[in-house]
Amino acid sequence: MTSRAELQLLRSLRDKKHREELGLYAVEGEKIVAELLVAGHPFEKIYATDAWAGQRTHSIGEPDMARASHFPTPSPVFAVGRIRRVALAPGELDQGLTLALDGVQDPGNVGTILRIADWFGIDRVVLSPGCADLHSQKVIQASMGSFARVRAIEADLGAVLAGIRAPVIGCALEGRDVHALPALVDAVIIIGSEGRGLSDEAKKYLAYTVTIPRKGAAESLNAAVAAAVVCDNLRRMAPG
Amino acid sequence: MTSRAELQLLRSLRDKKHREELGLYAVEGEKIVAELLVAGHPFEKIYATDAWAGQRTHSIGEPDMARASHFPTPSPVFAVGRIRRVALAPGELDQGLTLALDGVQDPGNVGTILRIADWFGIDRVVLSPGCADLHSQKVIQASMGSFARVRAIEADLGAVLAGIRAPVIGCALEGRDVHALPALVDAVIIIGSEGRGLSDEAKKYLAYTVTIPRKGAAESLNAAVAAAVVCDNLRRMAPG
Repeated sequence: MTSRAELQLLRSLRDKKHREELGLYAVEGEKIVAELLVAGHPFEKIYATDAWAGQRTHSIGEPDMARASHFPTPSPVFAVGRIRRVALAPGELDQGLTLALDGVQDPGNVGTILRIADWFGIDRVVLSPGCADLHSQKVIQASMGSFARVRAIEADLGAVLAGIRAPVIGCALEGRDVHALPALVDAVIIIGSEGRGLSDEAKKYLAYTVTIPRKGAAESLNAAVAAAVVCDNLRRMAPG
Repeated sequence: MTSRAELQLLRSLRDKKHREELGLYAVEGEKIVAELLVAGHPFEKIYATDAWAGQRTHSIGEPDMARASHFPTPSPVFAVGRIRRVALAPGELDQGLTLALDGVQDPGNVGTILRIADWFGIDRVVLSPGCADLHSQKVIQASMGSFARVRAIEADLGAVLAGIRAPVIGCALEGRDVHALPALVDAVIIIGSEGRGLSDEAKKYLAYTVTIPRKGAAESLNAAVAAAVVCDNLRRMAPG
């Protein structure tokens, strides 16, 4: 039996404000929860209906699941995790490759970028305060399990870029050909927001501004797509 | 005044079956309709509430817009276009670059791939019957206006690949490093379905199977992301 108060708490986790207050987040859906478990991700508690019950799950009836769920059609599993914020170590950004998201607001883009970072073995992803919330269902789901593997740090970009020694690369339409970047083993790649591009704060720190050569007429590329192309070029030139 | 029958017709365009029967499709939303108009896209009729009324629009009241709209929160504009199917010319795939989608089911991916094709100046996109419907709202919206500019052809892949002379490139995890592709000015790049990858039919025609070198642990890259990385590599080696 799951109490009414507990169900209300679970349901409240759809809101960032409540996640922050409680220090908890929720992930629903058989596929994504399975992917996170396979990746060894620690959950506090996993609620499951009979359709998904296992040794580690807490049994819940379907009507209660419908009360807890954030979905119009609830899935048979609802996992609760504890938010564990990680901080950057001093000088950490000077070593290896970092993707820094500068106000990337679409949760699908943020999740897809986590997956891209995981594919290319990027050492960390930094999210500015204007980004989609790392602990939202949509971000975690779009990451396809990479949420469990990628070191993701929420931090103010201006503060973390100040005093950095690794070169900072920004992606912008007016930049130079990304194919001509030198081989960089250490670098911070900044991905700007979908609508406004790079912030003035981030622009102050750029050693390189790059663009993906365009041959057609599209106004822009999706933020996650651009991130992947830049990562592929960096890995091509310096496999690391 | 918009008749009840007309509103029902508009509403029915959310279903592929009705779009096919009527030879019409619908696009809703201020931003995407504006992008398509800027690209010179021809619409049959544009319904607009007072908030969006213009010389070329047909005035409609908000209650009627709510009846016609496919959205829970209707936008002030609802554009109707005529489906114009294009066919491949004989030998067309032998010249230039083609992206061929082999059962790419997610409409966001199909739309994003149209945008990618538009960015890289890909000559055409072929969609197999198993792909998301080219004339659905989600595909058109994700294309960000590239729907108006990219030559997109719905065709059976097996039939169009039979007898092709341009090399066919498939993307698959077991492929060879995409960075080592030769410079190809003419090629067909096949993007497999999100879940099942390349079809057996498509595999018969591959001259090259390529993969994007992975350094981390993600199981796969998103189909649109992979398409963009392959296009960037082809354009880098043969700017065309």
